Amino acid sequence: METEKCVYRFGAAADGVDVTEGDASMNFVLGGKGANLAEMARLGLPVPPGFTITCKTCMGYANSGNEWQQGVLDQIDAATRDLEERMGKRLGDPDDPLLVSVRSGAPFSMPGMMDTVLNLGLNDESVQGLIRQTENPRFAWDSYRRFIQMFSNVVLGVDADLFENALSKRRLIAGVRQDSDLSAEDLCQLVSEFKAIFRDNVSVLLHPELADAAGDAAFPADPALQLRLAIQAVFGSWLNERACLYRKQNGISDDLGTAVNVQAMVFGNKGESSATGVAFTRNAADGTKEFYGDFLVNAQGEDVVAGIRNTEPISQLKANPTFKEAGEQLESIFGILESHYRDICDIEFTIEQGKLWMLQTRVGKRTAAAAIKIAIDMVEEGIITREEAVGRVSPKQLDQLLHPQFDPAADIEVLACGLNASPGAAVGEIVFSSDDAVKAVASGRRVVLVRWETNPDDLKGMTVAEGILTSHGGKTSHAAVIARGMGTPCVCGVESFQIDAKAKEVRISGTDLVLHEGDVISFDGARGIVVLGAVPLTTASLTKDLDTLLAWADEIRLDGPDGRGFHVRVNADNPKDAGLALSFGAEAIGLCRTEHMFLGDRKQIIQSFILSEDAAVRSAALAQLLEVQTDDFLSMFRTMNGRDVVVRLLDPPLHEFLDDPRELAVSIARLEASGAEGERLLEARSLLRRIDGMAESNPMLGLRGVRLSLLYPELPLMQVRAIASAAAALKRDEGLDPRPEIMVPLVSVTREHVQVRDVIEGVIGQVEREYGVKLEIPVGTMIELPRACLVADQIAKHADFFCFGTNDLTQTVFGFSRDDAEAKFIPVYLHKGILDVNPFETIDDAVLEMVSMAVSKGRESNPAMSYGVCGEHGGDPLSIKRFFKDANVDYVSCSPYRVPVARLSAAHAMLELR
Amino acid sequence: METEKCVYRFGAAADGVDVTEGDASMNFVLGGKGANLAEMARLGLPVPPGFTITCKTCMGYANSGNEWQQGVLDQIDAATRDLEERMGKRLGDPDDPLLVSVRSGAPFSMPGMMDTVLNLGLNDESVQGLIRQTENPRFAWDSYRRFIQMFSNVVLGVDADLFENALSKRRLIAGVRQDSDLSAEDLCQLVSEFKAIFRDNVSVLLHPELADAAGDAAFPADPALQLRLAIQAVFGSWLNERACLYRKQNGISDDLGTAVNVQAMVFGNKGESSATGVAFTRNAADGTKEFYGDFLVNAQGEDVVAGIRNTEPISQLKANPTFKEAGEQLESIFGILESHYRDICDIEFTIEQGKLWMLQTRVGKRTAAAAIKIAIDMVEEGIITREEAVGRVSPKQLDQLLHPQFDPAADIEVLACGLNASPGAAVGEIVFSSDDAVKAVASGRRVVLVRWETNPDDLKGMTVAEGILTSHGGKTSHAAVIARGMGTPCVCGVESFQIDAKAKEVRISGTDLVLHEGDVISFDGARGIVVLGAVPLTTASLTKDLDTLLAWADEIRLDGPDGRGFHVRVNADNPKDAGLALSFGAEAIGLCRTEHMFLGDRKQIIQSFILSEDAAVRSAALAQLLEVQTDDFLSMFRTMNGRDVVVRLLDPPLHEFLDDPRELAVSIARLEASGAEGERLLEARSLLRRIDGMAESNPMLGLRGVRLSLLYPELPLMQVRAIASAAAALKRDEGLDPRPEIMVPLVSVTREHVQVRDVIEGVIGQVEREYGVKLEIPVGTMIELPRACLVADQIAKHADFFCFGTNDLTQTVFGFSRDDAEAKFIPVYLHKGILDVNPFETIDDAVLEMVSMAVSKGRESNPAMSYGVCGEHGGDPLSIKRFFKDANVDYVSCSPYRVPVARLSAAHAMLELR
Repeated sequence: METEKCVYRFGAAADGVDVTEGDASMNFVLGGKGANLAEMARLGLPVPPGFTITCKTCMGYANSGNEWQQGVLDQIDAATRDLEERMGKRLGDPDDPLLVSVRSGAPFSMPGMMDTVLNLGLNDESVQGLIRQTENPRFAWDSYRRFIQMFSNVVLGVDADLFENALSKRRLIAGVRQDSDLSAEDLCQLVSEFKAIFRDNVSVLLHPELADAAGDAAFPADPALQLRLAIQAVFGSWLNERACLYRKQNGISDDLGTAVNVQAMVFGNKGESSATGVAFTRNAADGTKEFYGDFLVNAQGEDVVAGIRNTEPISQLKANPTFKEAGEQLESIFGILESHYRDICDIEFTIEQGKLWMLQTRVGKRTAAAAIKIAIDMVEEGIITREEAVGRVSPKQLDQLLHPQFDPAADIEVLACGLNASPGAAVGEIVFSSDDAVKAVASGRRVVLVRWETNPDDLKGMTVAEGILTSHGGKTSHAAVIARGMGTPCVCGVESFQIDAKAKEVRISGTDLVLHEGDVISFDGARGIVVLGAVPLTTASLTKDLDTLLAWADEIRLDGPDGRGFHVRVNADNPKDAGLALSFGAEAIGLCRTEHMFLGDRKQIIQSFILSEDAAVRSAALAQLLEVQTDDFLSMFRTMNGRDVVVRLLDPPLHEFLDDPRELAVSIARLEASGAEGERLLEARSLLRRIDGMAESNPMLGLRGVRLSLLYPELPLMQVRAIASAAAALKRDEGLDPRPEIMVPLVSVTREHVQVRDVIEGVIGQVEREYGVKLEIPVGTMIELPRACLVADQIAKHADFFCFGTNDLTQTVFGFSRDDAEAKFIPVYLHKGILDVNPFETIDDAVLEMVSMAVSKGRESNPAMSYGVCGEHGGDPLSIKRFFKDANVDYVSCSPYRVPVARLSAAHAMLELR
Repeated sequence: METEKCVYRFGAAADGVDVTEGDASMNFVLGGKGANLAEMARLGLPVPPGFTITCKTCMGYANSGNEWQQGVLDQIDAATRDLEERMGKRLGDPDDPLLVSVRSGAPFSMPGMMDTVLNLGLNDESVQGLIRQTENPRFAWDSYRRFIQMFSNVVLGVDADLFENALSKRRLIAGVRQDSDLSAEDLCQLVSEFKAIFRDNVSVLLHPELADAAGDAAFPADPALQLRLAIQAVFGSWLNERACLYRKQNGISDDLGTAVNVQAMVFGNKGESSATGVAFTRNAADGTKEFYGDFLVNAQGEDVVAGIRNTEPISQLKANPTFKEAGEQLESIFGILESHYRDICDIEFTIEQGKLWMLQTRVGKRTAAAAIKIAIDMVEEGIITREEAVGRVSPKQLDQLLHPQFDPAADIEVLACGLNASPGAAVGEIVFSSDDAVKAVASGRRVVLVRWETNPDDLKGMTVAEGILTSHGGKTSHAAVIARGMGTPCVCGVESFQIDAKAKEVRISGTDLVLHEGDVISFDGARGIVVLGAVPLTTASLTKDLDTLLAWADEIRLDGPDGRGFHVRVNADNPKDAGLALSFGAEAIGLCRTEHMFLGDRKQIIQSFILSEDAAVRSAALAQLLEVQTDDFLSMFRTMNGRDVVVRLLDPPLHEFLDDPRELAVSIARLEASGAEGERLLEARSLLRRIDGMAESNPMLGLRGVRLSLLYPELPLMQVRAIASAAAALKRDEGLDPRPEIMVPLVSVTREHVQVRDVIEGVIGQVEREYGVKLEIPVGTMIELPRACLVADQIAKHADFFCFGTNDLTQTVFGFSRDDAEAKFIPVYLHKGILDVNPFETIDDAVLEMVSMAVSKGRESNPAMSYGVCGEHGGDPLSIKRFFKDANVDYVSCSPYRVPVARLSAAHAMLELR
């Protein structure tokens, strides 16, 4: 059986003719570094010759229990001999030795996770050859001691500190401060000491091939053995712990393996005409079209990264007469690479005694702002198309851009962790109540509202706070939902915060720390981390560039195959959010939750409706609600003139509007204990009885949604009258084009929808007659329960649209109460690998299957209907793509601050269909 | 267009030759009565001639706005003339008038719901003919006044009291006590008075055809008009309110219509040689093979039913020389009908001057006990097969038989209503606490435990009480679940009971009634009704007959097509229930809920495991639990030796084992108010903090089931060790054949099952090594969440069996929390026709679709698996049939007392497949 090709050459032969075998497309064969080295060599760029051992070879070695597959070593030997020929030098040659680097290079970048060995090929004889060739004994001995140090540590696991200690000792003896001040003799002496360290710390039992005549471990002099061991070490580093963890976190398969690049060494540390550097072809921080990077004279690459010496900006390279030529060549190479890769490139280079060598290139990582600017500039420069530009900015980056962030340069220490409930970073003084928040902000301070959990009474404080932190509750807790809606950063369920609101202090579990009102904390709501003190923030902005990019994204998403578009609506409950969403590019309101309209001053009214047994009181309350709701809708429809506004009928259980029965029971107990009798106590007891009568075991699955409308038809009557009257008035009196739609929530039985629809249409008809105006108000169903998906064909016959409430659908399909699950077991499930993602953040396959089933049943039964998603998944990039591609929905609706992300994600979904 | 045939003749022509056109199969054409009259006539039995107007005619009349369809009246006229010819008499003939009855007769029996008119054909002239023919003026005038009275009321809606008042007045005037003592003259006078009542109470505007010359309403003398109006009235009675309600309650379509039977009158009240009676061919109460029924000499049928005079038992008929011949003929007809209908028949007959006439027959209704005895006797008599016998007993009847019932003869007044939580009737003195129940029962009294809601601390009282009544909670409340498990009657959610347990009294809302401890109440848990005082009960028994019938049912259900059987298991959590279930014929334990094993004395142990932060305390608690659990399983497996015992790992949220945080908060408030400080208060506060930390918003969807096992692996480790050790010990030390199976509850993600299974198998392996015994313990999944159904193919690869928890599946598919839904909106939904049945009682179509999907995905992926249902639907006859026929499951598992019902239902399911 012939052995598969497992070694690919790159770079020139001795005659200068390129003999490269791979190219940039061979990422999965040669790894990113190897493929791009091959590509650069093909482009005629100055790449030190070498060869790449394939990723598959690594997996073959690992899978056969760290044994070499047959024939592989022969191919490596042949490639090594070939490289010696091409270079006209031999490994270990006592006159003119070839030195090589051995570097890892996986298909996806895994920075710093795997191993590298430099200066391989040196031994006691070849170091003399290096001295002879360079006439620089100090350089040669320094290279040799670096090689022993690196090889011993990387290949054989000898503790790096042992070498550093020897180095320190040698500096002391020599009376110098820096390694660069050590003489060639010092370094020669160090080589001996390093070899002794090697002998004392390597086991010949594990490495019999290293045994010397005395049976001790000797540093291997044979370059072929050095090379084999180094390659094995790089292979092995694919499976080291940090690499495995990194892959898990980044969703990279363990089966890919890493390639190994063996390449002739070039030296940036051969004196003042040598240098080394890293650079981007554009500014990776802000996207400006300028060279961006640093270099160091007389240094090796690791010195640039280590940050020991101060680097010079790359723009200064040409200014140095020594590097004028190399600098000009480098700039021209920047141009070649950018136009070849059609993207910003990240490169490593070395100048050896005036000659430029390219050591690496890849498409450069960039910040969100840079990504947008570069994409737009490249379109204007004619390098890429608008589609490509849109495709190059990830929705995740965009999201980052839209919220303030911790300054990445800031050095932070995490004080506590919680749930990442609403993105963005916040810094402020701790306050423990809504009132304190309002007072502090009025006096010009910035605050973070810290609460056990929030409730509607905290709204004022939440509105003015920089951020909200709670010790309890999950991602759909009141705090989380409201915060996301307002675009305010929020961390929930910070369990280590033991809050005593009365004493205005927080104890931090597991520490002696007690924080008081006024102490400053910072937190990052996207990561769920809390930091003591003020962390510097980077601020968000909606730039002209972003507008341009999103406009291009809109062109793409609205122009799908068969004229099908993918639309973006907003979840907004008030004219302010609606206006904000319009400025963010929302096309319509996909979900207007009316329950938020019953909070604040209006809570009293809905309470008297719920609690009174007196019909007159109840109907007076309804009349009041009708008046304020009509006003609500008048301003919503004005703001959204000519655009759809999907209004959902009242959804939450009514007891959510009532006082907490436990608090009431406690205050009754206190009253009783105080010996109080009389009116007040009787009233409290009677109130408690009524509230208890409304209590539910599992409110999420209780008397809410359409069930409320059927049990208390007064409520939908009032709400629909408010909607229809507002629309009729605007149409008749202001000549506007109001477009309300009414959505019935939580339907599971077809007849629920049918009976409520009858009520709705009765009211609309009445209002039409009263105002003498014809109204066209579609009535649709919120599909958010498994049964609704199963009978979607039946419901569709009576509905004008479906909108999927994927939050509740996820809850019921999984049997997870989101609040409880995110606070108690989802984190553990993610940790144990039971779940790959939190299904409340990214739509689950099975939940998507239900959505998809409902859409196809619906389309078959009622082809005229439209389909949307208004759960929080409607703002998640991956979910958005899947809704469009796998479930065939027409639009997503998300919170105002996620509208730009949704527009971009929708465009990406459309691009993937092309 | 020729008119459809809408009139069918029955009975003999003038020459005695039968001219019947219909037969018993034409139920839906001729109604039950008409079809059976035709069948009897065909059999040569003495049936007074007549004709039947079809059901379709009724619907045609109703659907065209109470207008006659073309040609129908002509057919009726022709049939009337034909009947006159056959009888040799004419309607209204002044010499020898024909009199007819006009009776309703729908396809399904609707006793007393629709109208009848007798003696039609009488008028001032024909009454003279009747006198002439009968030589009995009193009979003739009595018939005439009865006719006017009945016709006026039934056909024209004249208030019946008006006639009764006139009758009373006439008795006063005549100075007699009974109608039968009125003379012919009195009755003649009454006819005049009745006609006057008619004139004064019928509107000629509505009935212009009744106007006399003076423009007043006159009682119609024309027999043809009498007949037409009477038929119209019977048609109209199909749509009267009570008939509609009856149909709705009994699931009879409104579209069937009723037939109308017009039949020559025969008279049981023509003197001492005339009689009338109703009879069953066997004893309909207990099934004994004996004639069963009553007759009255010189009476019309209505007199027998009205119960005005004392009837004589049918067995006495032959003993009366006057009726010897007719009695013998009747007995021979009993034989003819039984062997023809192959079932017990219910008949009505009249003897007119010695001659027997059959007026009706139908398959007789019977009690549950009679149904079983008759079925078995008929097999032994060779009349029906075993399959038929099994098919003739309905599971619903059987259920009735297995619980004590209110004596149907008892006259009850309903005091309050609640949810029918656990069937059976109970009578006892009210007690308000578990302790009081125990004390009262110890002193020999019978009690009903009345509580706001029960909790595990009430178990002792619940065990000894005759029944349990709660004012709160639904059908899965603690009270309901425990009561059903114990077979104790229970009514939940009796909202009108305002319980003050401290004062030991109950106020009944809407009344002035206050009940105290010791007051006797009765309730029927199958109907959810509560009665003040002691209602006499009928007691339940498992008879030899029932055993025989169920054995035949077993033969059928275990011998399905392709050798497939349908098995019945039991849900039992202790050896007592297991033993009971074995005696009821359960084949195995389909669900052993381990949480019930942690109550009582053990609650302390599990509490210290849950609440302690001290590892030593926790592991000591686990060790104690291990010991008691091992004992539990030792006795379970001994009882069930050789039979499968499916043990479910701990399922409920742990906070269910803890104290109620609200009560604790209240007692803390009291302590604080009392000024108490110190240890006790601190401890209570710390306990409350820990309990609060475990609180959940929606416990049904929270940290329970497999989620508990993954977060607290100590729990499944302990439980599996107990199961495996018990099995190993019994196998090794007692030579028994223990067959435990382990079921993982609430799986929604495949890896949940996989990871827990790993833990389970690890422990089993350890125990095998410790005991030196090989154990084969299958591990299965409880499928009770929509997601588990959707990914059933994946889960199936790692499971040995699936058991569907259809309670939770119904909750999640509908998004209904059972407790909340049954207490709040399901009753309204049933009332409004949004739901046809309570989906927690009878499996819903969509839920069944999920089950069916999971079974087929599972069978495809892992053909070796078995499939069962262990939700409460496993005890519901209709659901059982659907599980087998529509979802392809292998067994159901239900509570012990429902095992017989399930065995019978399973046999019915199998019969329907044949």
